[in-house]
Amino acid sequence: MRIIITGGAGFLGARLARRLLELGSLTDSRGRSRAIDKLLLVDVVAAQGLCDPRVLHLTGDLADRRFVEQAISTDTDTVFHLAAAVSGEAEADFDLGMRVNLDATRALLDRCRLLSAPPKFVFASSLAVFGGLLPDPVPDDAPLNPQASYGVQKAIGEYLVYDMTRKGFVDGRSLRLPTVTVRPGKPNRAASSFASGIVREPLAGIDANCPVAATTRMWVTAPRTVIDNLLVGHEAPASAFGLTRSINVPGISVSVGEMVAALRRVAGDKVADRVQWNFDPAIDRIVSTWPANFAPKLGTALGMQADHDFDSIVHAYIADDMPKT
Amino acid sequence: MRIIITGGAGFLGARLARRLLELGSLTDSRGRSRAIDKLLLVDVVAAQGLCDPRVLHLTGDLADRRFVEQAISTDTDTVFHLAAAVSGEAEADFDLGMRVNLDATRALLDRCRLLSAPPKFVFASSLAVFGGLLPDPVPDDAPLNPQASYGVQKAIGEYLVYDMTRKGFVDGRSLRLPTVTVRPGKPNRAASSFASGIVREPLAGIDANCPVAATTRMWVTAPRTVIDNLLVGHEAPASAFGLTRSINVPGISVSVGEMVAALRRVAGDKVADRVQWNFDPAIDRIVSTWPANFAPKLGTALGMQADHDFDSIVHAYIADDMPKT
Repeated sequence: MRIIITGGAGFLGARLARRLLELGSLTDSRGRSRAIDKLLLVDVVAAQGLCDPRVLHLTGDLADRRFVEQAISTDTDTVFHLAAAVSGEAEADFDLGMRVNLDATRALLDRCRLLSAPPKFVFASSLAVFGGLLPDPVPDDAPLNPQASYGVQKAIGEYLVYDMTRKGFVDGRSLRLPTVTVRPGKPNRAASSFASGIVREPLAGIDANCPVAATTRMWVTAPRTVIDNLLVGHEAPASAFGLTRSINVPGISVSVGEMVAALRRVAGDKVADRVQWNFDPAIDRIVSTWPANFAPKLGTALGMQADHDFDSIVHAYIADDMPKT
Repeated sequence: MRIIITGGAGFLGARLARRLLELGSLTDSRGRSRAIDKLLLVDVVAAQGLCDPRVLHLTGDLADRRFVEQAISTDTDTVFHLAAAVSGEAEADFDLGMRVNLDATRALLDRCRLLSAPPKFVFASSLAVFGGLLPDPVPDDAPLNPQASYGVQKAIGEYLVYDMTRKGFVDGRSLRLPTVTVRPGKPNRAASSFASGIVREPLAGIDANCPVAATTRMWVTAPRTVIDNLLVGHEAPASAFGLTRSINVPGISVSVGEMVAALRRVAGDKVADRVQWNFDPAIDRIVSTWPANFAPKLGTALGMQADHDFDSIVHAYIADDMPKT
C-alpha cells in the first residue's frame, strides 16, 4: 500500500507519518487491510528525523501540476492532504492562499482521477468553514459560511472533494479539524497560533501574548487526539458518510481564560503569569468568526475522540512534545 | 458607465442587454445613477441584432486570463456574469464545466481586483447549489449542498464572490436563478431544457419529450421576470445583503404535469397532446436533486417578483419570444 502525505514535513504531517509507520497497515478503498510499503512525504522542505526504509521524501510546489504528476504515482492508495497556507497567512496574502489552499487541492484531486483505482483522499479541512449566525452547539449539517479567505478556500476544497467523490474519481473524506494545540516549535501565521503559544512559551520560560479576550472560546484538540481522528476518518467505510463527505471532528470548547487556568493548575503561577494580554484586532477578527462549540454526532459515532479537558491537553504537550531539559 | 455582460450572445445576456439599452442608466457601486455609455457583450460568438452605438462585441474564451484582461477595461463599473456551461453539459464533461463555470468566474473576479474602483459583480448562480435533505420551502439560509458538478461549480463561484467582496475587490451579488422557461430557440444541454421544450415545441407544431415524471415539481421563472430580478439585484444597496451576498431569486413552484395543463388551457388539446413522456434517468437524476419550492424572503423584500402562475409564463413566451407566423 502506497500512502502520500502532503505537508509531510509539517508538525501534523510528520506526526501522522510516525503513527502510520508504527501501525504498519491501513484499510484501502476496497475495505482490505494492507501493509504500508511506501510512505511518501511531500512538502516544500524535507521532513526531518524519519529514518525508515518505507519513507520517501519529495520537495516541491503542489500548485505546480507537473510536480503533482511526479509526486503521485499511479499506484497510490491513499492521499492525506494536510498541506496548507494557514489562516492568518491566507488572509494577509490572498493569492498565496488561493494557490496553496485551492489550486494545490484541485491539482491533487485532478491527478487522482488518473490513478489505477480511486484512492482514499483525506482532506484536512477546518472549523473555519463555519461562521456567521450559527446555533450553539453547531450541528453536523450547519451551512458553510466562512468569514475569511482560509475558510473559503477550505470550503471550496470540500465541495471539490465531494463532487470528485460523487464522480468516482476519489474516495474522499473532508475532516474539519478543531484548532490543534499545543503545537511545538515556533509561532506560525495561523490566527490560532496564540492558542499554542500561551502554553508552550510560558513552559519554556518565555513570555507569551494572548491577542484575544480571556472570554473568547475555541474548539480545540490535542495533536495526539487529532491524529487518531484522522485515522478514524481514513478507516471509516464510504457508506458511513453523509451527503457531503465532510465531518466535524470532535474537540472541546474552552475559553482562553480557562486555557491559562489549566496551565496554572498544571505548571503553577510563575508559568501562567508569563501570559500577557495585548489585544490584536486582526487576529481577533478572524478567531471570533469561528464557532467554538460543536455537536459532532457523526464523528463521534464513527469513533472519533475528544480530549477530556484542557489540563489533559497541557499534559499531552508536556509528555509528547515539550523539549526535555 | 461601462457595463460588461458575459454570455452576452446568449438568450438571457442579449435580453438583458436590450433591457439595459432601454433603461439607459443604472446605479453604480457608489449609489449614483449613471448613464450607460458602453455595453460590452462578451461571448464565444457575437450577439446578433443589437445595433446600438453603445454596444461593443468581443468574442473569446473567458477561462483565458489574457482574454479576460483584454475584455475588462479598468473603467468597468458593472460585470453581469452570465456565461456558463449548462447543467447537463457540466455533468457530461467535468473538465469543461470546471473551466467555464469555475476558472472563468475566478479569472473575471481576479481581473476586477485591478480596476480603478471595485465594480458591481452580478453572478448568475442557480438553485442547483441546493440539494440533499432540505426543508420545504427552502429558507434563505439553507446550506449549499449541490448534488451535481454544475451546482458545485456555482456554489464555489458564490464563495469566491463573497470572499472577494469581503476583501473589497468587488461589490458582489450572487443571484440564484430558478429554472428559466420558456426559452426560445433550440434545446440546450441543460438538464432543465425540457421545461422549455414541452411548451415551445408543441406551440411550433412539433412533438416534445418530457424526460421526468409529471409529478416532478420545479422552481421556475419567465425570462422577462428573471431579467427584472437581475436588475433588482444589481440596484440593491450593498447593505441589503446578508452574510453571503447570495440571494434566492423568486419563482413559482409547479409540477411538470401542471405545466402541460397550463399549455392545454392556453393553446388547446391538440398542442398539449404533442408532449410525450419518455423517462430519461440521467436528466431525472439531476433535476430531482433540485429543490422545487423556496421561501425567498430577502429577494422579495428587495422587490424581486415572481410570475403569477404557469399560464402567465406560457402567455409571456407567446408575447415575447414565439416566432410569429
